[in-house]
Amino acid sequence: PRCTLPLSSVDSSGSRFAPLVVLELASDTKEEAIAWLLSRIRDWQQNGGAELLVEQLGPGIGVEEKENPNMFLVGASMQRLLCGAEDLGLFKECTDGSMRAFTFASKHNFKDFKDGFLSMAECQYVIKHELDTLRAKEETNVPGYSHAKLYPGKSIIRRLLSKGILIQMFPLHENEELKRLSFSWYKKVKVSLQPLDDIRHYYGEGQALYFGFLEYFTFALVPMALIGVPYYLFDWEDYDKYVVFAVFNLIWCTVILELWKRRSASLAYYWGTLCRKKAFEEPRPGFHGVLGHNPVTGRAEPIYPTSKRHLRVYLVSLPFVLLCLYLSLYIMMIYFQMEGWALSIYDENPTFWTHILLFIPSIIYAVVIEAMNLIYRYAAEFLTEWENHRLESSYQNHLVLKVLVFNFFNCFASLFYIAFVMQDMELLRQSLATLLITSQILNQFMEAFLPYWLQRRRNKKMIRKIQKRRLYEEKELPLVEQVRLEADMSTYLGTFDDYLELFLLFGYVSLFSCVFPLAAVLVVLNNITEVYSDAFKMCRVFKRPFADPAANIGVWQLAFEAMSVIAVVTNCALIGMSPQVRSYFPESETQLILCTVAAEHVLLGFKFILTFLIQDVPKHIQDKLARLEFESLEALKKKVKSDSKFV
Amino acid sequence: PRCTLPLSSVDSSGSRFAPLVVLELASDTKEEAIAWLLSRIRDWQQNGGAELLVEQLGPGIGVEEKENPNMFLVGASMQRLLCGAEDLGLFKECTDGSMRAFTFASKHNFKDFKDGFLSMAECQYVIKHELDTLRAKEETNVPGYSHAKLYPGKSIIRRLLSKGILIQMFPLHENEELKRLSFSWYKKVKVSLQPLDDIRHYYGEGQALYFGFLEYFTFALVPMALIGVPYYLFDWEDYDKYVVFAVFNLIWCTVILELWKRRSASLAYYWGTLCRKKAFEEPRPGFHGVLGHNPVTGRAEPIYPTSKRHLRVYLVSLPFVLLCLYLSLYIMMIYFQMEGWALSIYDENPTFWTHILLFIPSIIYAVVIEAMNLIYRYAAEFLTEWENHRLESSYQNHLVLKVLVFNFFNCFASLFYIAFVMQDMELLRQSLATLLITSQILNQFMEAFLPYWLQRRRNKKMIRKIQKRRLYEEKELPLVEQVRLEADMSTYLGTFDDYLELFLLFGYVSLFSCVFPLAAVLVVLNNITEVYSDAFKMCRVFKRPFADPAANIGVWQLAFEAMSVIAVVTNCALIGMSPQVRSYFPESETQLILCTVAAEHVLLGFKFILTFLIQDVPKHIQDKLARLEFESLEALKKKVKSDSKFV
Repeated sequence: PRCTLPLSSVDSSGSRFAPLVVLELASDTKEEAIAWLLSRIRDWQQNGGAELLVEQLGPGIGVEEKENPNMFLVGASMQRLLCGAEDLGLFKECTDGSMRAFTFASKHNFKDFKDGFLSMAECQYVIKHELDTLRAKEETNVPGYSHAKLYPGKSIIRRLLSKGILIQMFPLHENEELKRLSFSWYKKVKVSLQPLDDIRHYYGEGQALYFGFLEYFTFALVPMALIGVPYYLFDWEDYDKYVVFAVFNLIWCTVILELWKRRSASLAYYWGTLCRKKAFEEPRPGFHGVLGHNPVTGRAEPIYPTSKRHLRVYLVSLPFVLLCLYLSLYIMMIYFQMEGWALSIYDENPTFWTHILLFIPSIIYAVVIEAMNLIYRYAAEFLTEWENHRLESSYQNHLVLKVLVFNFFNCFASLFYIAFVMQDMELLRQSLATLLITSQILNQFMEAFLPYWLQRRRNKKMIRKIQKRRLYEEKELPLVEQVRLEADMSTYLGTFDDYLELFLLFGYVSLFSCVFPLAAVLVVLNNITEVYSDAFKMCRVFKRPFADPAANIGVWQLAFEAMSVIAVVTNCALIGMSPQVRSYFPESETQLILCTVAAEHVLLGFKFILTFLIQDVPKHIQDKLARLEFESLEALKKKVKSDSKFV
Repeated sequence: PRCTLPLSSVDSSGSRFAPLVVLELASDTKEEAIAWLLSRIRDWQQNGGAELLVEQLGPGIGVEEKENPNMFLVGASMQRLLCGAEDLGLFKECTDGSMRAFTFASKHNFKDFKDGFLSMAECQYVIKHELDTLRAKEETNVPGYSHAKLYPGKSIIRRLLSKGILIQMFPLHENEELKRLSFSWYKKVKVSLQPLDDIRHYYGEGQALYFGFLEYFTFALVPMALIGVPYYLFDWEDYDKYVVFAVFNLIWCTVILELWKRRSASLAYYWGTLCRKKAFEEPRPGFHGVLGHNPVTGRAEPIYPTSKRHLRVYLVSLPFVLLCLYLSLYIMMIYFQMEGWALSIYDENPTFWTHILLFIPSIIYAVVIEAMNLIYRYAAEFLTEWENHRLESSYQNHLVLKVLVFNFFNCFASLFYIAFVMQDMELLRQSLATLLITSQILNQFMEAFLPYWLQRRRNKKMIRKIQKRRLYEEKELPLVEQVRLEADMSTYLGTFDDYLELFLLFGYVSLFSCVFPLAAVLVVLNNITEVYSDAFKMCRVFKRPFADPAANIGVWQLAFEAMSVIAVVTNCALIGMSPQVRSYFPESETQLILCTVAAEHVLLGFKFILTFLIQDVPKHIQDKLARLEFESLEALKKKVKSDSKFV
C-alpha cells in the first residue's frame, strides 16, 4: 500500500519519507551484499555510515515483464539534509541579500528558511555526495563478492559501480515542478527569456549555465544578424565589401567572450557557486593503480605514477591525434580531387546526371566527416580512459581537448583550404552555406523530432500499460511506475555535445561570416530552435541528471577564447586578401602582406590588453566577495583577541 | 643612562624593551599632539589603542648640531608581537615540516618556538601594521592641528604622514646580524650562492625575491653565454649564422620565465607568503575624495568615483604617454639624420676632427635618452599621483606600466629601426655593444662606486664626531647615535629601479643577442657585479626598509612575459631576414614572408601551450597546499558534526 503514495515512501521505522535518489543494483545481486549496503547507508555517521533513509521499491504493475527487484529509494530527514548542505559548504542567500555558506547554527539568518529551503536538486546533490563519500571500514571486499576488493577509506559506491554490482544511481523527477518548469520554458508561445533561475533550481548550476550561455550567445549574435541581412539583400554578389564585416567580427568575438565572463560570474554569484570551496576530488571509478597513500588526504588510494601517464599522453595519444589529423587532411584532399574530377566530367558532358554527379563528392565527404567524428570520438574516449586519469575533471579536460582539436580540424580544414589555398570566395560562401544549413537540419531532426517521436512512443506504451490494469484513477503515475519508467529513460551524458555544437557554430560565424553574412541569421534561428529542443530533451527524454554546482563553463571558455584568437588571424588574412585592400598596394604584394601582418599583431595585442581591461567579475560582485573575505578576517581577529585574553 | 644600553630602551613602567621602529615627528610638533599620539599608541587594544611600548629618544652626543628632539622608539612585548603575528596571519614552519598560519593557541606545534621565533623583520612588520591600523575614534582632528582632520576609522599614522607632522617611520638595523649577513653576502671571496634565507630573514620576502630573481636570471644566462663565446671567437664577421642562436633564444626566454614561476612559488612557500591571506588594503596616504563609506569594510573613507579616474587615465594620461612616445620617436629620427650628416661630412673630409664628429650624435642621443627617461619618470609619478588611485598596489601598477612602456620605447626604438627599417646588422651589433657596455659602466659607477664614496664620507664624519667626545670605548655605536645616523641615511625606494634595469637587460639579450652573441656574457658579468653593488647598498647606504611579504615578483612577471612574446616576434623576423633563410626562397619574397609569419604563429601558439603545460607551482608544493586546504575542510566538517549533535 505504501507505493500508492506518490513521491513518498515509508522507512523501516514506520515514518514516511520523500524518496530523492534511486539506486539500481544488478538483479542477481547477492542478499548479503544488499543487506550490508543498506546497513551501511542507514548506519549512524559516528559509526561511519551515511545516516540516510533507504527502502526497497515494491513490485510494479506490469508484472508480466521481468522487473529488477533490486531498486532502492534513498531519502533523508530534513535535519540530515541541512547538515549535509553545511558539510558541502552550499552558499545560500541571507536575509541581508548577501550570499553566505550555510551553517546550521546560523540558519535563521538565511532568507526563506523553511520547508523548501533546499531545492530538490540540492537535496539530491547532498545525498549523492553522502553516498559517494560512504567509505569502507575494515571490510576487505564486498560481502559475497571476493573480487570486489575494498580497503579502509575506499568509496563503496564507486567500487560497486566499477564492478557492475550497482547499475545506476539517479535522482528522481518531481512531476509537478517539472510541469511548471517545462511550461514556462518551452511550452509558452509568448517570447521571453528562459527561466534560468528555475532551470538552476531544478537541474543545478551546470545546466543553467549552459542555457544561460546559449541565450547569451544568441543575443550576442543579433547585431551581427541585423548587419548581415541588408548586406545579404543589397550586396550579395559584391563580396569585396566584406572588410567592414571582418573588422566588426574581430571586435565582436573578443568583446562578447569577455562580457560573458562577467555575466557568468554574476549568475554564479547569485547561485552561490562562485565562491563555494570545492571538496577534495575523489579518484574516478575507473582509476586503477598500486594501493598507496594519497599525499593530500593520507587515505589509502590507488597510486599511478604521473610520469607513466605523461608517457601515455605524449607517446601514444598525441601521435594518434596527429595521425588522425593527417588522415582527415588526406581525406579532404581526396574530396577536392573528386570535386575537380566531377567538375571536369560535367564540363565535358553537361547533362542532368552529370549535374547530379557534382553533388556526390560533397555528400560523400559530409557523410565521411560525420563517420570520422563518430569513430574518433570512441577512440578518444578509449584513449583517455586508458591514460588512467585520477580525477574526473582531468579526464574530461583531456577528452574535450582531443575531441575539440579533431572536430575543429575536420569541420574547418576544407573551409580554410578553400579560403587560403584556393582563394575562391564564391566557393567558400557556397560551402559555408551548405555546411550551416545541412548541420542545422540534421541537428533539429536529431535533437527535436527524434526525441519527440521517442516520447510519443513511450507515452503510448505507458498509457497502454496503465489501461491494462485500470487501477489508478489519478492523473499522477504511482511512484513505483514512475521510478521504473525513469530508470528506463536514457542517461543524459552532460553538456559536452551541446557545447561542442555551439563551439562549431561560433567558429562558422566568427571565422567566415564576413564572406557569408547570412551565417549569423542562420545561427540565431538555429539557437532559438536549439533552446526548445534542448529544453524538451532535458524535461522529457532523459533521466534527471544530478546537479553540478559549476561556477563557470570551464574548459569551454578557453576553447571559445582560442577560437576567437584564430578568428582574429583569419579575419585579418581575409581582409588582406580582399580586392578592396589589395587595390591600395597595387605595386607591391610584399608590402600588402607586411601591413596585414602588422595590423594582425596590433589587433592581437589590443585583444590581450582588452582581456586585461575588462574585469572578469563585475565591480559590485567583487565588492561583495571582498566584504565576505573582510568579514571572515575580522571575525578571525576578534577570535584571536578574545583568545589571547585567556592566555 | 638608558641610552648607553645598545639596542634596548626602558619603557615608562621601568622595564627594558628592544626598540624596533623609529617615528620621527617634525621638530616643531605641538606638545599636545605628541602626548595624544603616545597615549593612543600605548593604550589597550580594547580601548582602540595599539598596546605598544614607545619612548622618546634622548639627546645625542653631537649637541652642537641642531637635533630633532621628537624622535620616538617603538617596541612591544613578545606576547604582543605574537598576537600581532597571528592577527596578520603570518605563516611559520611547523614541527612536521608543513607551513601553517601561526596561532597563539597552537604555538607549541611550531618549529623553534622560542625567543627568536619571529625574526626582527617580522616584528618590525607587525609593529608597522599595528601603527598603520591605529584608527581615530571620536577625534575630529589631530590635537593642536585643526587642519589635520580625522574621522572615526581614519588611520592616524596616514593622516600624520599626509600632513607632514610625521616625517618618517623606519625600522632599525641590527648591527650584529647585519655584519653577519653582509659577510656571507658580499664580503666573502669564495664563490657561492647568495644567502637568500638570511636576506629574507633580515629584509623580508620582497627583497629576497628580487635577489633570488637576479641570481636565477644570471644562471639562466650562463648557457647562452657559453654558446656566445665560441660564436664570438670563431664567427665574429659571419653573422649569417645567427639563425641557430635566434631559435635558441626563442625557446630560452619562454622556458626560463615559466621555470622562474615554479622557483618563485617554491621560495614563497617556504617563506610562508604563498598562501598567506592578504589583509584588506587601506587607501594610500595621498588618496583624497568626498567622505563616504567603503562598501567592503563599511568604514568611513574618502570615496572617489572610478569613472572620474578612468577619465583621467584614458583622456589625459594615455594621450600624454602617446605624445611622449611620439616625441621619443621624433628625437630618434633627428639622431639618425645627425648620424647621416656626420657621416657625410666625414666622407667629404676624413680628418681626425671629423672622425671624432662621428661619435658626437651617439653621445648626444645617449644623454638625451637618459634625460628624457628622468623627466618622464617625474611626469609619470606626477600623473599617477594625480589619477588618485585608492590603493598603493594600483598606483604602483599604473606607474610601472607608464615607465615601462616609455623606457622600452626609448631604449629599443633605435635598435628596432636599425634592425628592421635600415636592415643594417653590422650597425645593430655596434649599437647594441655600445649601449650594453655604456649602461654597464654607468650602472656600476652609480650603484657601487658612488655609494662607496658616500659611505666613506659618512664613516669619517661619524668617527670625527665620536672622537670629539671620546666617551665610548666600545666598538658599537650607542643607540642614540645609531638611530640618528640611520635617520639621516637615504630611504630605499623599493625594487622598482632594480627590476627595470633587469628588464632592459633581459630585453637586450632576448631580442637581439643573436646578432651580438657576447651580449649574454656582458649581462652575466653585469649581474655578478650587480649582486655585489645591490647587496652593498642595501646593507650600507640605505635605511633598512620594512619587510614586504610578497609571494611573487608581481607585475614584473607580466612585464618579462610580454618582453618574451616580443622576443619571439623579433627573433622570427630576424631569422626571416637572414641571408641564410633568404637563400631558400630565391624567387619569391612573398613566400619567404608568409613562411616566416606562419612559423612565428606556430611558435607563439607553442609558447602559449608551453605556458599551460609547465605548471606554475611544483607538484610537491601543490600537494602541500591541497593538504592544508583539505585539513581545514575536514576540521570544518568535524565541527559541523559535533555542533549538530547539540541542536
